[in-house]
Amino acid sequence: MQEINIILVGYGNVGQAFVNLLNEKSPYCQKKYGLDIRLRALFDIKFSSRFNEEGSFVFPKAVTIDEILNENADAIERVRSLYWQKEKTFLNVLQTIEPGVLVECILSKNRSGKSGFKYIQQAIINKWNVVTADKEPLVHSFSELLALTKKNCVQLKLSGATAAALPTLDVALLSLAGTEIQYFEGILNGTSNYILSEMTKGMSYKSALKKAQSKGIAETNPSLDVDGWDTAYKILLLANTVFQENFTLEDIDIQGIADIDEKIINKAVKQGEKIKLLGKLWREDKIRMKVAPELIGVSHPLYGVDGTNKGITFSTDTMSDVTVTGGKSDPKGAAAALLKDIINIYRLDYS
Amino acid sequence: MQEINIILVGYGNVGQAFVNLLNEKSPYCQKKYGLDIRLRALFDIKFSSRFNEEGSFVFPKAVTIDEILNENADAIERVRSLYWQKEKTFLNVLQTIEPGVLVECILSKNRSGKSGFKYIQQAIINKWNVVTADKEPLVHSFSELLALTKKNCVQLKLSGATAAALPTLDVALLSLAGTEIQYFEGILNGTSNYILSEMTKGMSYKSALKKAQSKGIAETNPSLDVDGWDTAYKILLLANTVFQENFTLEDIDIQGIADIDEKIINKAVKQGEKIKLLGKLWREDKIRMKVAPELIGVSHPLYGVDGTNKGITFSTDTMSDVTVTGGKSDPKGAAAALLKDIINIYRLDYS
Repeated sequence: MQEINIILVGYGNVGQAFVNLLNEKSPYCQKKYGLDIRLRALFDIKFSSRFNEEGSFVFPKAVTIDEILNENADAIERVRSLYWQKEKTFLNVLQTIEPGVLVECILSKNRSGKSGFKYIQQAIINKWNVVTADKEPLVHSFSELLALTKKNCVQLKLSGATAAALPTLDVALLSLAGTEIQYFEGILNGTSNYILSEMTKGMSYKSALKKAQSKGIAETNPSLDVDGWDTAYKILLLANTVFQENFTLEDIDIQGIADIDEKIINKAVKQGEKIKLLGKLWREDKIRMKVAPELIGVSHPLYGVDGTNKGITFSTDTMSDVTVTGGKSDPKGAAAALLKDIINIYRLDYS
Repeated sequence: MQEINIILVGYGNVGQAFVNLLNEKSPYCQKKYGLDIRLRALFDIKFSSRFNEEGSFVFPKAVTIDEILNENADAIERVRSLYWQKEKTFLNVLQTIEPGVLVECILSKNRSGKSGFKYIQQAIINKWNVVTADKEPLVHSFSELLALTKKNCVQLKLSGATAAALPTLDVALLSLAGTEIQYFEGILNGTSNYILSEMTKGMSYKSALKKAQSKGIAETNPSLDVDGWDTAYKILLLANTVFQENFTLEDIDIQGIADIDEKIINKAVKQGEKIKLLGKLWREDKIRMKVAPELIGVSHPLYGVDGTNKGITFSTDTMSDVTVTGGKSDPKGAAAALLKDIINIYRLDYS
């Protein structure tokens, strides 16, 4: 049995789902993979100033939780109450226990990614692997972080940031190994897809957005989702990982769904077609990327991807098109994607 | 640059496509993965008696081809003419060059898998990894071969035998790591799916079969495909690999498509539904498997999988349903799946 130490940063919806999942899956991971995955410390940035007056980053103090996995569900509540009682800092924990995996779940919207970057950077420097659901640090500093992982011989895995339970990177990097990916296109944002699906059933954009907000599918400020940014983030991370490039958001032409009105939807419905917010990458003289709503017909492989579902089609030279759809589109699905990445870091053989 | 020696066994459609693919992809594999994949020897069982009068297996003699990858396309024809000129046996090659990967492409139908088993067994004992497109040895002796790989610290990869360019095992083992797969169902045989698709367009079973045969999609004796055996093989291999079980064909209830007539198809079409040959695994008191034609509606994730296309849906506890469709359904796609498995054996890190 291999013991794996976990430090969790970020205790929002996804972080909490991750703790619950570890509690639930601990015996399974031990039995199936021979991995004893132990949550050893938990940090949540919202309880601390992040940058001090001089502009330096100050890591919060946090509690260290030994073997939370062996506790019952109350442990999660205990974490909250214990949170500020111990005086260990993030760096102190990184440096005093055997390196394992930093799980980075800082998911607040409209961030620069600077805090997440600091956590990831320090973890890597201290020989910790990283799995993350936080897109911003990767969007802004992927190549820098990747270089750092190579230098320190650790892994950085980003399934949680690239459509989570829908496997995108695994498929592109492993299932399509040896092929050249010529283009890909995906429905990669569940919120905007939900809104478009409701509109197809007859709702106005405003009502559909409201419904999504009331169900917790859309944020109060929905811009990240409906204006195409979240899709663009994912396209960017896929492009930079798969093609080992260094693209930025400026390389992507981004258009959201806020201008889609009932007329456009009705016309599509009459033709037996659907409007979907697609993120695309293709090759002309060079690699091009865009995010935009598009009409797709019944023969399109993503035609059946409705509601909060997501999907992606990769077109390759030697394996033709491969499409993946589905994957739980909620915090539990995101947590499951984080756990998957942890398992795959440590598993040597999967035949 | 890591040099990887390849021995290819079986020079039918898939074996030939594999040699062509290696020629085509050699520079790409060097640049992208740092792998110099060299075909060092080629054997084709049809040129030799396989079992002698005492019932012992006699490996054929074969030519060794150094660096065929650096030769031009004529090399492939040269292989044929050189075939019997050298006197090295399979065992001799296995034991005299640095172990790499045996690529097993013995694909003739209606075999017991005994010849393929002998090749795979000897390769593993001599510390060679194995990637295979040959289902029969795995159907009959998977657990024995798997135990042998563990003992000899090598890998046995079977993408080529489990729907090839459609990623099934990668997704089940890697993308869904940490989940429990509760059921899966797939359209896993391109030939029968092609016939059913043609019947949906109005053809009779006999005409559709004839058309498939004239296009090289169906064999002269189509039983393996249309009677559900090929689908059953794949379901069996997936079940035994994913659940580390030791099921046999007798555990699968198998029904083919030969009894599907125009009446049944017409009724389905009228209802907006389709008949598909599904291979299924689910859990009741224990794991159950069957292959049978079934009606599926427009909301089914495999509804759009027509022609020679394939697809599979995995239903999990923590990631919900994940569906994969597509993947080139021909010898080139199968060859690409073999190459993928080779790359993934040697690649240490894929973040």
